[in-house]
Amino acid sequence: MPEAKLYLEDLAVGQVFISETHELDEASVKAFAMQYDPQPFHLDEEAARETLFGGLAASGWHTAAITMKLLVASMPIANGIIGAGGELSWPKPARPGDVLRVTSTVMDITPSRSKPDRGVVALRSETRTQNDDVVEILSSKIFVFRRPA
Amino acid sequence: MPEAKLYLEDLAVGQVFISETHELDEASVKAFAMQYDPQPFHLDEEAARETLFGGLAASGWHTAAITMKLLVASMPIANGIIGAGGELSWPKPARPGDVLRVTSTVMDITPSRSKPDRGVVALRSETRTQNDDVVEILSSKIFVFRRPA
Repeated sequence: MPEAKLYLEDLAVGQVFISETHELDEASVKAFAMQYDPQPFHLDEEAARETLFGGLAASGWHTAAITMKLLVASMPIANGIIGAGGELSWPKPARPGDVLRVTSTVMDITPSRSKPDRGVVALRSETRTQNDDVVEILSSKIFVFRRPA
Repeated sequence: MPEAKLYLEDLAVGQVFISETHELDEASVKAFAMQYDPQPFHLDEEAARETLFGGLAASGWHTAAITMKLLVASMPIANGIIGAGGELSWPKPARPGDVLRVTSTVMDITPSRSKPDRGVVALRSETRTQNDDVVEILSSKIFVFRRPA
């Protein structure tokens, strides 16, 4: 994890943060699904073949959770990554064996009018596999503080 | 989990599905955070007090994962709940001790033009605590098949 802590003044539109990688393995795909998304296409290779996915696929929420892990470690915002929500899409499913990496781009920076110590930063995070397939696009807005005086 | 399997013809705009409940405990809040969102406000009560959250809070992605678990069990779509994405907001954080329930409303139903065997259903899922605080709003679009002839 990078050491420098970033404040609102340190960010600029167009800035890009590239994460480390995370290899998805079958055991964790199934473990996540058991707990949070227990559907056949996330749990069982055989059953998954007959479905829209055509084979075992990670829950989109698992992909989202891994994306968050990679994002948090790659973007050292001083107050942490705190978002109020966003838009999410999964153009393709992530699958066991995929090696995921997240590229996050600063799309917009809006200083708060009511709270001069902070602003809202619009981020676009793309999660790609080793083959450059996009498995998630997350457009989020995060709160970022200014450097204390 | 309900037994009847639902097809596109079984759904109507305005239909509501209410889930069972899930009690969030401190251990699982921290375990999820350790793995996927290792930030102080999700990991440590003391450290969390000094942050925007003012106390230990579940990762929004943990709330989203629990929402999916409750949604899957409360809406018995024949082919499962398969979404391509959606819009997500977390008006308030979920906290240890909160008892979550998801209420999902069918907002729109659009038969596919190119694939007559299916359609897209727009859902709005609200995740609320025992005090009726909304901790997540998820607007998603899911694929639903027609009943086979």
